[in-house]
Amino acid sequence: MAAQFEINKEFIDGMRTAILADDELTVKKLLEDLHAADIAELYNELSLEEAKFLFLLLEGELAADVLAELDEDDREKFLKVLPSEVIARQFIDKMDSDDAADVMADLSDEKLEEVLLHIDDVDQAGDIVDLLSYDENSAGGLMAKELIAVNENWNILKCLREMSKQAANVDEVYYVYVVDDDNKLKGTVSLKRMLLSQNTAKIKDIVNTDVMSVRTDTPGEEVAIIMDKYDLVALPVTDGIDRLVGRITIDDVVDFIREEAEKDYQMASGITEDVQPSDKVMVLTRARLPWLLIGLAGGILGALVIGHYEPDLVNYPKLAFFIPLIAAMGGNVGIQSSAIVVQAIASKSMGLESTGKKLLKEFAVAFINGLILAVLIFASNYFISDPRESKFFALTLTVSCSLLIVIIFAALFGTIIPLILNKLKIDPALATGPFITTMNDIMGLFLYLMIGKILFGIF
Amino acid sequence: MAAQFEINKEFIDGMRTAILADDELTVKKLLEDLHAADIAELYNELSLEEAKFLFLLLEGELAADVLAELDEDDREKFLKVLPSEVIARQFIDKMDSDDAADVMADLSDEKLEEVLLHIDDVDQAGDIVDLLSYDENSAGGLMAKELIAVNENWNILKCLREMSKQAANVDEVYYVYVVDDDNKLKGTVSLKRMLLSQNTAKIKDIVNTDVMSVRTDTPGEEVAIIMDKYDLVALPVTDGIDRLVGRITIDDVVDFIREEAEKDYQMASGITEDVQPSDKVMVLTRARLPWLLIGLAGGILGALVIGHYEPDLVNYPKLAFFIPLIAAMGGNVGIQSSAIVVQAIASKSMGLESTGKKLLKEFAVAFINGLILAVLIFASNYFISDPRESKFFALTLTVSCSLLIVIIFAALFGTIIPLILNKLKIDPALATGPFITTMNDIMGLFLYLMIGKILFGIF
Repeated sequence: MAAQFEINKEFIDGMRTAILADDELTVKKLLEDLHAADIAELYNELSLEEAKFLFLLLEGELAADVLAELDEDDREKFLKVLPSEVIARQFIDKMDSDDAADVMADLSDEKLEEVLLHIDDVDQAGDIVDLLSYDENSAGGLMAKELIAVNENWNILKCLREMSKQAANVDEVYYVYVVDDDNKLKGTVSLKRMLLSQNTAKIKDIVNTDVMSVRTDTPGEEVAIIMDKYDLVALPVTDGIDRLVGRITIDDVVDFIREEAEKDYQMASGITEDVQPSDKVMVLTRARLPWLLIGLAGGILGALVIGHYEPDLVNYPKLAFFIPLIAAMGGNVGIQSSAIVVQAIASKSMGLESTGKKLLKEFAVAFINGLILAVLIFASNYFISDPRESKFFALTLTVSCSLLIVIIFAALFGTIIPLILNKLKIDPALATGPFITTMNDIMGLFLYLMIGKILFGIF
Repeated sequence: MAAQFEINKEFIDGMRTAILADDELTVKKLLEDLHAADIAELYNELSLEEAKFLFLLLEGELAADVLAELDEDDREKFLKVLPSEVIARQFIDKMDSDDAADVMADLSDEKLEEVLLHIDDVDQAGDIVDLLSYDENSAGGLMAKELIAVNENWNILKCLREMSKQAANVDEVYYVYVVDDDNKLKGTVSLKRMLLSQNTAKIKDIVNTDVMSVRTDTPGEEVAIIMDKYDLVALPVTDGIDRLVGRITIDDVVDFIREEAEKDYQMASGITEDVQPSDKVMVLTRARLPWLLIGLAGGILGALVIGHYEPDLVNYPKLAFFIPLIAAMGGNVGIQSSAIVVQAIASKSMGLESTGKKLLKEFAVAFINGLILAVLIFASNYFISDPRESKFFALTLTVSCSLLIVIIFAALFGTIIPLILNKLKIDPALATGPFITTMNDIMGLFLYLMIGKILFGIF
């Protein structure tokens, strides 16, 4: 029984030594029992030359599987050095249509055409051309053409015979789809149901018409939500007139869900590309610089805001003590508010409250939190400052009041921005990004110093 | 064909009116064709009284399915008002063992025992007691006992007969597991393979021994990674001596993956509970206050740090201008670094580089980013300040130097903290949380003012 496999340093070292010694036998022995996903993972640890040596030792179908499992970047590098004929005959021909289309989508237009011409299986070439026409993030882009479909007028015996034929092309039989003479989707028939029925029964009589389906243009996010909510392992895809054109399997959707979650996480932590610690220094630098540049611009703007109030700072330097607190709080509260809304939009759990009611609630939450924090900072100021100092009361009141106002302001801002972005069909996760955070920081600073100026005039 | 369903305000209003009028017929008509997951979603929009009315109208199996789909909070409320006998006979008896165990886990110990006594199906009661003994986040806690297993010594005909019997208890047949006489897992046999083979062939001859399995104590995170990586829809679970005890299906793992991603996202955005905009004000407040309190404490510490350098600020108030910039940059860089490491740990894609090499790389990334930003801020200072002012050069140099140092420091700190937490078996996502961010802020502030004091002394 094959246990899951974890790559360790000893394994890699052994592999490297064998490759360096041109020892094909040892390399093959090391690769034995490894799943395509494991071999693809190995590639991250090897140089392009080492990886190529290894790749050429793989047998037909396994090589195709490994290619499908590779990271997009690694795959592109590989495809560049392989001739179109090899790509077509040794890989594309042996892949499922959806994986093949994913690989082909990475090719240049020119190479794509060359590869298409070299695919021996005309059906496969046709399927790929079909699949490439859909948006990558739509149901059409996620689906595979391979599926098992039976006609509603067949009996179970004929059905089982036909399924045996079709099954040769399909990795996993999750559902058997039932179509009419026009190939329109009528429902599913479960293997369980077939096992429990008479051989002469007609499919029509045991079809389960209660089947969910999506159109080719349904967005990937919606596909993920439907499959997750209704616990589906496969979802049929139909065209504009209900004809069955493909099916989406859960494994592709799991990847999609994970990638979407990672994207939102990266957005919230200020990284602009999908990077890993093992990536090159320049890739890591590039992924992180954009947010830092926005942060820098925000910092300069902040300096200008404070500069505007320089005379007040000269008169009362202690006003500067609480600048980081106010700026940080504005940013924090804004991220919290946005994150809750962004997550709810992503999982379609926004509920039915009106925007007005949402904002009113957000106001209440911010007011309670703000009040608690304002009271705490007011009290703690008695400990860290000397109450007998001149202008002590003005400072303490300034910090407390502006903290409350900044928290309320940032909360409302953080709630409404993702809602507006979503209305405008822009990814609401942007609202947890650096731009909005920086704006909240600066707004907080501005409010603090303005309130300070007013209160120092009064008290 | 049932399309997916989206709850809208009109639907809810119609439902409310019907419930208010005690109009069972209309309510039943509205619920017709709805999936259990949709009905569970409806409950969020209804009051407990309205939901109870609706619940009592549901037929046996559907009522059990809806109960399984409900949010934990809603379910607890419901279970509290239902007698143990009803819970046992009308719900638990009709559920899959894993859903049943999940529901039972929410009950008080006392009620749990009562319900167990009322379960008519002794096998089901035994399965539930077994499942409840495992940690919720382990393979044992995620698995269901329902599966189809055949003996390796049977032939295909006997196998198909036995499967028909077993299939009645299993919702979806993904794999047929093969066991020996001791119930030890030997492999799987695919339906496809059976459809393509002779009826008299022995299972032994067509068994696929290349099957992944996990032990009952395998952590849920690892289960998710294995199923995702190897594209599995179901994964068998064995006990300490390889006996087959259950199977985990992909739908439970999708939920797990989503919940884990949401948890990390919440951590990065400073929310301590899984909240939705539709939650009560007090719940939302409670979820957000902890981070804000840490932020407040950090702000007070920051004020103390600045206070320590008050004489320098009095001498040169312009030093205050760049406080928000430095503090924000320290925090930002720290989050970026931690987030990359946290994500890599979560997806087991850390690579094999030694910690020393990782830190060296992080240093390089931080140095490049820091240098770019330091040069930019140096240049921009010539525009926003007046170069002829006294101490202009000292200020500009302070900002640039400390920015570079703070970025490098925060990057290394942000990288090493999640690695240490992970070594200590603490959730590394904590490193993107408020505590570390606040520490980075303060450290940045401290470095800035210290460098300022030194440079103002020199220039």
